[in-house]
Amino acid sequence: MEILGICGSLRKGSLNMVALRACEELVPQGMKIRITSIADLPLFNQDVFDAGIPEPCKRLRGEIAQADGVLIASPEYNFSVTAPLKNAIDWASRPPNQSWQDKPVALFSVTPGPLGGARVQYDLRRILGQLWAHVLPRPEVFIGSSATKFTDGKLTDETTRKFLADLLAGFKPWIERMRVRK
Amino acid sequence: MEILGICGSLRKGSLNMVALRACEELVPQGMKIRITSIADLPLFNQDVFDAGIPEPCKRLRGEIAQADGVLIASPEYNFSVTAPLKNAIDWASRPPNQSWQDKPVALFSVTPGPLGGARVQYDLRRILGQLWAHVLPRPEVFIGSSATKFTDGKLTDETTRKFLADLLAGFKPWIERMRVRK
Amino acid sequence: MEILGICGSLRKGSLNMVALRACEELVPQGMKIRITSIADLPLFNQDVFDAGIPEPCKRLRGEIAQADGVLIASPEYNFSVTAPLKNAIDWASRPPNQSWQDKPVALFSVTPGPLGGARVQYDLRRILGQLWAHVLPRPEVFIGSSATKFTDGKLTDETTRKFLADLLAGFKPWIERMRVRK
Amino acid sequence: MEILGICGSLRKGSLNMVALRACEELVPQGMKIRITSIADLPLFNQDVFDAGIPEPCKRLRGEIAQADGVLIASPEYNFSVTAPLKNAIDWASRPPNQSWQDKPVALFSVTPGPLGGARVQYDLRRILGQLWAHVLPRPEVFIGSSATKFTDGKLTDETTRKFLADLLAGFKPWIERMRVRK
Repeated sequence: MEILGICGSLRKGSLNMVALRACEELVPQGMKIRITSIADLPLFNQDVFDAGIPEPCKRLRGEIAQADGVLIASPEYNFSVTAPLKNAIDWASRPPNQSWQDKPVALFSVTPGPLGGARVQYDLRRILGQLWAHVLPRPEVFIGSSATKFTDGKLTDETTRKFLADLLAGFKPWIERMRVRK
Repeated sequence: MEILGICGSLRKGSLNMVALRACEELVPQGMKIRITSIADLPLFNQDVFDAGIPEPCKRLRGEIAQADGVLIASPEYNFSVTAPLKNAIDWASRPPNQSWQDKPVALFSVTPGPLGGARVQYDLRRILGQLWAHVLPRPEVFIGSSATKFTDGKLTDETTRKFLADLLAGFKPWIERMRVRK
Repeated sequence: MEILGICGSLRKGSLNMVALRACEELVPQGMKIRITSIADLPLFNQDVFDAGIPEPCKRLRGEIAQADGVLIASPEYNFSVTAPLKNAIDWASRPPNQSWQDKPVALFSVTPGPLGGARVQYDLRRILGQLWAHVLPRPEVFIGSSATKFTDGKLTDETTRKFLADLLAGFKPWIERMRVRK
Repeated sequence: MEILGICGSLRKGSLNMVALRACEELVPQGMKIRITSIADLPLFNQDVFDAGIPEPCKRLRGEIAQADGVLIASPEYNFSVTAPLKNAIDWASRPPNQSWQDKPVALFSVTPGPLGGARVQYDLRRILGQLWAHVLPRPEVFIGSSATKFTDGKLTDETTRKFLADLLAGFKPWIERMRVRK
């Protein structure tokens, strides 16, 4: 089971990226995460799309289409989705939408503030759900007050590691359940 | 009263941009609209911001700060804000936030589908409202089924023109009311 | 396949109820709709719940639990869910939540205004989705400008009848797909 | 300056009500809170409204209309507004809407879970904002993990008391600013 990891922040030291990397070790047996980049996508412009999908966007569309599931880690910028993440979702969604259609997705968010991304996750659920992706409803993982949970560029808080392991453990049967049977 | 116009789509033939230009003629006396561009902003990255705000972002921050109000016209991409628009809001919001704080904002949206942007406007209201901008609550202007309202790159539907004129007429006293009294 | 119909308005002449009744005739083969009432539920109060679930609430919980799917028709009150509908959802959700867990749900909304409930549906999707109900993502059915579509207490607009028939036709395979396999 | 307090939970021991009562002591000089009840309102039904507004609803409409501001304390039920609170808002909103129009509102929420109501507050902001009430944007007060902050039916956590005092201190100039000047 191959999972594509996407991080909503472009910061080099992004704690969401750190947590995403921690997930690589926390997966249940039979699951593997490969992390992609969304930094090199241009700002979405339908004219550009129509003239020929840019290479990085084409690459991302293929990666999502081929993955058994997508794991998104993202901060919250101004109470909603980060622009780089929305940009990636939009490039991948344009018809023919072979990217998000019927794709199982799991989410979590890391934020410096105490709420841990309680707002961005619902926007993502709405956006992806209406693209007919299947977003795992629970467990919900909100990693707030990040300064207390990461040390030296590692996710060191054991409770948080456990939450992520639970998320991934729950994601596996969800993927099996949501798989389109042909 | 100087209003800064921002369009959420980068498409050359964007109908939101066409409608924004129509607003230049529909303003009440004493109001003037100047339209800016958000196409040249890089994808938001806090590392880049910290290393020195890029010129186009600096320009946008200044334009918003100086305007008496901001008029946003935007399509809806995948049930929410377009990435270019969220990107512009985020670049302009980073502290010191002299851009959005106490800034009167009016919104409208043009979409090919029948709903006219009923989802994107509420995300924008939440995002901007929490940045302490003051978004005009009513009239709400949703310009759906755009194919029937624009001809030869002009906003020709009289009812829609009237809606926009009403929006701008309502925006003027809102700006006066929300102005910070010193 | 037995579907439970719930109407979010308590008005006697509710057009949502009229449309729900029209659905009884529009179902695909093998599907049957039975409409319940939520008018006799008291306002939710956890003290009352703990002292013994009131009879109408117990009845509703059983009806939802037994149905193969739930079809909700609702107006939008003040940009969100009606109180009677939220009340019904809340009474039915309290643990042990055998009502909403894994229940397939389809939605539509009828409103006098042009948007047809574009806001209420997303609140319902969020609320029910997080209760682990499975809300059919598409087709989305927004029945706006209701005055033009109903005559003499009947849903007479053929396009709208077709939309509802499509919704129900799409609901059937969704129920089969979402059914928990034991 | 007379503030009307409304609690979104009907539970006798509601911690939101406890916190609302604590606010009575935490107000800045010149502000007074009077708490009303929304328990005796029937479920909203337009037929009932048209036949004659029920006495408790008429009372609530008058109380809101006369108050200088409204302070809402509410739990979150199933990721959104409680039915009793939505019911109260709806009864008070029906035209002629002399209740919410131009009414300053401040919000906070108490929840047993860690998020402290991060979802319900944005629904309330949308609902009330579109009714042209003026909801104070900040400070945002989310009182999560309530079990650790209340003792013997009192709000004992000093940090939380400080947050509420700050909210009320910020509410006062907001009311003055939003007051309609005649």
